[in-house]
Amino acid sequence: MENQVIVGVDVGGTAIKMALLSTEGEILTKLEEPTPVAEGEDKVIEKIARMITDILKNANVSNEQVAGVGLGVPGPVDTTTGVVLQAVNLHWTSTPLKEKLERLTGLLVKVENDANCAALGEMWRGAGLGAKNMIMVTLGTGVGGGVILNGKVISGINGVGGEIGHITLNPQGGPPCNCGKTGCLETYASATAIIREGTRLAESGRSPLLADALSKHGQLRAKDVFDAAHAGDEAAIAVIDEAAFYLGLALANLVNVLDPAKIVIGGGVSAAGDFLFSRIRQSFVRFLTFSFLADTCQIVPATLGNDAGVIGAGKLIHEHIAS
Amino acid sequence: MENQVIVGVDVGGTAIKMALLSTEGEILTKLEEPTPVAEGEDKVIEKIARMITDILKNANVSNEQVAGVGLGVPGPVDTTTGVVLQAVNLHWTSTPLKEKLERLTGLLVKVENDANCAALGEMWRGAGLGAKNMIMVTLGTGVGGGVILNGKVISGINGVGGEIGHITLNPQGGPPCNCGKTGCLETYASATAIIREGTRLAESGRSPLLADALSKHGQLRAKDVFDAAHAGDEAAIAVIDEAAFYLGLALANLVNVLDPAKIVIGGGVSAAGDFLFSRIRQSFVRFLTFSFLADTCQIVPATLGNDAGVIGAGKLIHEHIAS
Repeated sequence: MENQVIVGVDVGGTAIKMALLSTEGEILTKLEEPTPVAEGEDKVIEKIARMITDILKNANVSNEQVAGVGLGVPGPVDTTTGVVLQAVNLHWTSTPLKEKLERLTGLLVKVENDANCAALGEMWRGAGLGAKNMIMVTLGTGVGGGVILNGKVISGINGVGGEIGHITLNPQGGPPCNCGKTGCLETYASATAIIREGTRLAESGRSPLLADALSKHGQLRAKDVFDAAHAGDEAAIAVIDEAAFYLGLALANLVNVLDPAKIVIGGGVSAAGDFLFSRIRQSFVRFLTFSFLADTCQIVPATLGNDAGVIGAGKLIHEHIAS
Repeated sequence: MENQVIVGVDVGGTAIKMALLSTEGEILTKLEEPTPVAEGEDKVIEKIARMITDILKNANVSNEQVAGVGLGVPGPVDTTTGVVLQAVNLHWTSTPLKEKLERLTGLLVKVENDANCAALGEMWRGAGLGAKNMIMVTLGTGVGGGVILNGKVISGINGVGGEIGHITLNPQGGPPCNCGKTGCLETYASATAIIREGTRLAESGRSPLLADALSKHGQLRAKDVFDAAHAGDEAAIAVIDEAAFYLGLALANLVNVLDPAKIVIGGGVSAAGDFLFSRIRQSFVRFLTFSFLADTCQIVPATLGNDAGVIGAGKLIHEHIAS
C-alpha cells in the first residue's frame, strides 16, 4: 500500500469537487469545476475522468499509485453495480457510473449516495472520529442524512438508506413536503422551513426584526431568523424551538432503535451553534426511551464542512483496500 | 464442522426454553423448564448448565460435538463480554452470563437480547429467510423489535438496539407508557393497548359486543377486540385502525431510513392475520418517502412462533463458526 493515494469525488448539480487523498484520508490537493449537467451524463463522466488525469498529473502521481476513485452522487445508488438509480439534479437515471468511469480511467471505482459519503467522511476524519455507529444529519435546503452502523453505511436494498429528512413527525397534518407527504422532518428543520416560517412572521407583522430584514434583502435567509432569535425576538425563537423540537424528536426515535455513539449535525443551519444545539438536545433527551442514552450518544457539529463529501467518497476505496 | 450441533436457549422470566439445533438451524430436540428466578442468578445459570448436559445426553451428543451455546435474554446485553446489563424479569443486573456459563460447561457461549434473537431466528429459518436487511416487530404485552442490517443484528453501543416499541408517535400527548413517556408505539399497538381501548369501549357502553365479552370473562383479551371488529363493531374497528395506523407510521419511518427488504411481524396480536396486516400496509404505504418502497419491502407474518428465540440464539453460534 506504499505510496498509494485515493481520489474522492463529490458530484453535485453545480460543481464537481475532487480531492487527492492519502490512504489515511488526508487531503493532499483539491480541484473543483462546474458540472456540465446540460451536456448530458457522458460529458459529465468524461469531465470527471479528465479532472482525475489533471489532479494526478499535477501531483506527479501515476495511475499505478492510485488505489481507486470513490464518488458521491446526489441520489440513490446500487452500490454493488455502481449504477446511479436516479439523480434529479444531474438529470441522470440508471447511469452506470462505475462501469463508464472504470473504462475511461482504468481505475477501480466505487459509488455511493453523497449524504452517505458525508457521513463516512465525518466518521473517518471529522466529528464522528472513532464512532462505528453514528447518524449524520445535514440541515440545508433540505434535511439529508446518513446512517453508519457497525462501521458500514446503511445503503439499504434500494440505495435510499439514510433518508432522515422524510421521517413523518406530524402524521395528521403539518406543512406540505416536496416528497408529496406532509409533516416530514424536512418541513420543520431545513433552512427552507425556517425561512418559510420567518417570512410568515415578517409578513404578518409579528416580528418587526424579520420584517426589517425582509424589506432590506427582499428575501430572508435562515441566518436572519437565527439573528432575530438571538436578539430576543420571541416569534423567531418559537420558529427555532419548533425546528429543534422536531429534530430532537426524530433523532431520539432513531437513537431508541439504533443506539449509536454519535449524532453529527452539519449543513448551513448547523452554523447556528449552541443556540440551536442546546435546544435540539433538550427535545432529544425528552424522547429517549432510556435516559442514559443522552450520555452515551453525543450530538456534535460536523467539522469537515464541504470536504466531508470528497473525504467520505475516498473512504469507499479505503474500506475496499482494508478489507 | 462435521456432526456439530448448536444449543439455543431462550431465557425468559417464566421458562428456560432450549433447543438442540443442527448447524443449519433445524431443531433436533427441545427442552423447557421453569426459570427459578427467585433463587437468584447463579441458580438460574446452574440450571441452564444442567439442562444443557441433559439435552446433550438425551441426544447422545458429546461436548466435543457442540459448536457453542447461544442465549437470548430479556434485556440489554454487552454482546462482546456477554454481560447481561439488566433483565428486569430475571432480577439480573450486570450478570456475566457468558463467563459463568462457559466456566460451568466448558462450551463457547454467546449472548444477545431476546428480541434480537427472535429477529435472527426469523431471518435464518423463518419469514425473513434470505433477507439480510429486515425489521422484526413483536406485538405482545409490549411491542418488541429487532433490526438486522447487512446480515448483522443492530445491538447498538449499549445493547438496546431494536427498541421499536418506544418510538414516540404522539410527541404532544398520547397514552402514558411504562417507559415514562407518552405516545410510544407500544401505547397504541400492543395487546395491552388494544385491551385498554377495548375495555374503555365496553365500560362506556359504546360497544355492546365488548361489554358482553367483558362481563362474561371479567377481563378482555386482544382477541375479543379483534373478534368484535371482525363482527363489524365500528368502535372496535376504530381501535384496530388506530393500532394499525401508528404501527404503519412507525414502520414507514424506519423503512424510509433503513430501506430493508422485509418487515416480519410476530407476537400474539399478529395472529389477527390479514384483518390487521391489510390495515398496517395501508398506513405504511401512506408514510413512505418513495412509493416503490412498498414493493421492495414486504410486510409478512412471523412463521417460527415461540421457536424464533431458540433458533435465533443458535444463529449467534452459527455466525461465529461461519466467520
